[in-house]
Amino acid sequence: MANLHQFGRTELLYLDALHVGQRFISGTHLIDEEQIKAFAQQFDPQPFHLDAGAAKGTLFAGLAASGWHTAAISMRLVVESLPLIGGIVGAGGELAWPTPTRPGATLHVESEILELRPSRSHPDRGMATIRSETVTQRGEIVQVLIAKLVVPRRTS
Amino acid sequence: MANLHQFGRTELLYLDALHVGQRFISGTHLIDEEQIKAFAQQFDPQPFHLDAGAAKGTLFAGLAASGWHTAAISMRLVVESLPLIGGIVGAGGELAWPTPTRPGATLHVESEILELRPSRSHPDRGMATIRSETVTQRGEIVQVLIAKLVVPRRTS
Repeated sequence: MANLHQFGRTELLYLDALHVGQRFISGTHLIDEEQIKAFAQQFDPQPFHLDAGAAKGTLFAGLAASGWHTAAISMRLVVESLPLIGGIVGAGGELAWPTPTRPGATLHVESEILELRPSRSHPDRGMATIRSETVTQRGEIVQVLIAKLVVPRRTS
Repeated sequence: MANLHQFGRTELLYLDALHVGQRFISGTHLIDEEQIKAFAQQFDPQPFHLDAGAAKGTLFAGLAASGWHTAAISMRLVVESLPLIGGIVGAGGELAWPTPTRPGATLHVESEILELRPSRSHPDRGMATIRSETVTQRGEIVQVLIAKLVVPRRTS
């Protein structure tokens, strides 16, 4: 299934094996100026994401990663650390960026299961609500995502 | 300021020049299999985003773009079509992906201002709530983002 490569012999989890309050801690990713500019050039070409000098005079007061870049890195960290049997399939969620992500930040993601709800119409799946905080090495929270994930149920 | 390059002689807008119900339509972006796989390899390495064959047996029933890829493309389309004086600076929002983005989709974004609120603590700015729908050439809605943007106010 989806994540065998990342997780090797780790057991992949169905909805039935999860519980509210369960936590998952990801590995880390070091973001630098080059990554920030490359993502921004492709997807978010604004001065505060492209040019440290021009960024000084903006609300960010210095170069900062696009929030969508922080979100994308966070996704990778979650994909590598949350061993769900069907993979990480999001239907949507709530997103906040309380602090900018700066070059030199080492990010990791701390996820916690908030709610589990079997589907009424599809007995083979359910919805897990998960709060994922993306945190720097100094404990600054750069992103909070409360996501709704579709997770398979054990049906045998 | 931020977006002079994209907008040329277009007037860049302060919060005071916006009104509820105002709409902005973006240009288009054609997404293909190569882009979908390149983004997934970097940020969301799961079979349904990487391999059309492996994707068949998953919930997506075929290759689909990462939701974060759809979000990143949508951001570029908004940056190029919403002429705010301070650029597009998001504090967060609510995100939904009602339909997968498939290779060959031509995406555009339709944005509408839902709410405008001057800041009490910072008289030089305010918050605009904007609903942005990312839509294919066939009218399928692949993303709905209700975003809170920080927008400068005219202070002279």
